[in-house]
Amino acid sequence: MNIKAYMQTLGSQARDASRIIAAADTALKNTALLAIADALSDGRDKLLAANAVDMQNGSANGLDAALLDRLELNAPRIDAMIEGLQQVAELPDPIGEVTDLQDRPSGIKLGKMRVPLGVVGIIYESRPNVTIDAASLCLKSGNATILRGGSEAIQSNQAIADCISQGLSKVGLPEAVVQVVNTTDREAVGELITMTESVDVIVPRGGKSLIERISADARVPVIKHLDGNCHVYIDDHADLQKALAIALNAKTHRYGVCNAMESLLVAESVAKTVLPELAALYSEKDVELRGCDKTREIIASAISASEEDWSLEYLAPILSIKVVAGLDEAIEHINNYSSKHTEAIITEDQDRANRFIRQVDSSSVMVNASTRFADGFEYGLGAEIGISTDKIHARGPVGLEGLTSQKWVVYGDGQIRQ
Amino acid sequence: MNIKAYMQTLGSQARDASRIIAAADTALKNTALLAIADALSDGRDKLLAANAVDMQNGSANGLDAALLDRLELNAPRIDAMIEGLQQVAELPDPIGEVTDLQDRPSGIKLGKMRVPLGVVGIIYESRPNVTIDAASLCLKSGNATILRGGSEAIQSNQAIADCISQGLSKVGLPEAVVQVVNTTDREAVGELITMTESVDVIVPRGGKSLIERISADARVPVIKHLDGNCHVYIDDHADLQKALAIALNAKTHRYGVCNAMESLLVAESVAKTVLPELAALYSEKDVELRGCDKTREIIASAISASEEDWSLEYLAPILSIKVVAGLDEAIEHINNYSSKHTEAIITEDQDRANRFIRQVDSSSVMVNASTRFADGFEYGLGAEIGISTDKIHARGPVGLEGLTSQKWVVYGDGQIRQ
Repeated sequence: MNIKAYMQTLGSQARDASRIIAAADTALKNTALLAIADALSDGRDKLLAANAVDMQNGSANGLDAALLDRLELNAPRIDAMIEGLQQVAELPDPIGEVTDLQDRPSGIKLGKMRVPLGVVGIIYESRPNVTIDAASLCLKSGNATILRGGSEAIQSNQAIADCISQGLSKVGLPEAVVQVVNTTDREAVGELITMTESVDVIVPRGGKSLIERISADARVPVIKHLDGNCHVYIDDHADLQKALAIALNAKTHRYGVCNAMESLLVAESVAKTVLPELAALYSEKDVELRGCDKTREIIASAISASEEDWSLEYLAPILSIKVVAGLDEAIEHINNYSSKHTEAIITEDQDRANRFIRQVDSSSVMVNASTRFADGFEYGLGAEIGISTDKIHARGPVGLEGLTSQKWVVYGDGQIRQ
Repeated sequence: MNIKAYMQTLGSQARDASRIIAAADTALKNTALLAIADALSDGRDKLLAANAVDMQNGSANGLDAALLDRLELNAPRIDAMIEGLQQVAELPDPIGEVTDLQDRPSGIKLGKMRVPLGVVGIIYESRPNVTIDAASLCLKSGNATILRGGSEAIQSNQAIADCISQGLSKVGLPEAVVQVVNTTDREAVGELITMTESVDVIVPRGGKSLIERISADARVPVIKHLDGNCHVYIDDHADLQKALAIALNAKTHRYGVCNAMESLLVAESVAKTVLPELAALYSEKDVELRGCDKTREIIASAISASEEDWSLEYLAPILSIKVVAGLDEAIEHINNYSSKHTEAIITEDQDRANRFIRQVDSSSVMVNASTRFADGFEYGLGAEIGISTDKIHARGPVGLEGLTSQKWVVYGDGQIRQ
């Protein structure tokens, strides 16, 4: 198989299909989503059979239990994919609306129309449900998609791709609106991320090393999520009950998520009051505490935090704690060590809250709320394709709108430039 | 000189300065812009002396007359720089406003705050006034800037940089808010476009080959302008007087600009009516016409257009003309050959206008108006740092807003995730 030629063909088909899906109206896109849901429902046996092959190969190749769990398809997971398609069908269509209309002195009327990006490349790891998630969001936002899943899920992804093709054909849309790369050759990824003529943006989903590798080699723009080293800062003027509840929730609600708190900053004036109570709460949950010297004077059980700890995303029941002089040191620490994902201040002082909001350079900045709220569903986006830690284009939770662009629209009546 | 170490130092100073300018209020930023204007005014003699050295070197190195003209500083051009600073001071400050506030079911209040990108790298060619243009727009939008001008303008740019430093110092801002690279070594560009830790975005300004080279090698995101192969389509339902006026204006108002029409499409049903009159008008302006076979049956003087002509940005009194069957062929031709800058339809039929607007994939799409209106000033942006032909982040004319991002802001009252 000539990988380069194969990928170029996918790209050129996707470009053609992108023009058709960009012009499709909301009803047609929604009918397509529901037709894909029907095809998945009708194809359950084939999906399970294909997945069984992947699971068998995965076991034989020594995949660990966690990876096998992510790879597995079963009845509830197929139901969840079907439900996801139905939910995306119910989301408002971002495409085609003209906003910000204004009359210009020249006599032209100017506005902005929200439009699809064109062709979106998605590169992801083992979970086959991403195939449906990503395809449905791209389809609803009027984009064509080229999906490259993990090699361990190739049979499952191809079976899902067949269902998608059936759904698209049924409503008269070209199958190339959603294409799943049918090779596990790594060269396919290298091609996909450099086909600037036919791919408008790459969205990688997976571990940090995958995303770093893709970002380093891509020539197509990448919307990416690196790590989530999130902070909570308990200010001198904090309500201590809110502080305790939020610091506990942000760390222990779920450990393996990117919006969990990984580092706690406490103003010196309240450290002796708040840290002993917090230490007791974390102890109940078996959270390992790594503190600065001042923290360890208050919490004897905390081990010593190294310089590296301030930058780590643990994704585990571990928390680093630093006592700071106050707001300024907290902001400086966060801007130096944070991954710019999500940070929260606990304070009753509105001026200090505003300074924190203005000066902390992260995609989400919160006052008196748990970092766990940084999420497309909690923000009302309906669904998310990821959380961007980039500043360009889409920042923070990325929903349908992040998969679109705007064009300028000018309505004239014969105006010429003088 | 160790270029890598030098550029890393600029980057790290810019990152620190970016936090200070991001937090600066509107009054301070405006005072700084006016202080820079004063410094330019006081430094006229030094600016002219420095520029004389560049001009002398340029002549000795055989720069052509057009390049020498772009390089030259004189009293009116210094006045224009001073006026530009005053105008940017008067523009509304995009930074800090919180919009789209909404209450979420969880009890949190969610909004978006417009924030600077951080550190902007600008790479440009001979015209020294770009140093002031770019620096002032970045400063007003709360960004730190690293500027890399052309080697032929190094003395002029350093003299301008001195004035900028004086202005910044005078109002108590760090000089590193605006830094001009003080070496003509090309390695400095290679460093600047790969310093992902300290530079958030690169804006190249110059010819297509410069921009293509930078885009190919950059690891930092690039907001770029490639070519402007703009189209006007005269529809079956066009008002022919508007068609003639717009087709003439879009081609002949100025030839060397990116929003000039380079290719004219005419519906077959009106070609025989409109083309002879147009040919006469173009003939008065000495515009060379390159047509398809059907065009040449109507305009005998037109030479034969090659396949390559449909993709060319002439930037000259040359126009390619194609007779098309109608709207669908026009849209398809444009989406295949256009550089996705600006396209216009001339029609009195609202449905056809809407189809054109929706389906043409370009940064500006116009109805009954000259492509020459695609411009930051005409669109009311006040000033522009360039016109983007990218789809990601900023598309079309880029003003202050294109130099900003948004962060999510969450106001809670102790909310935790259930």
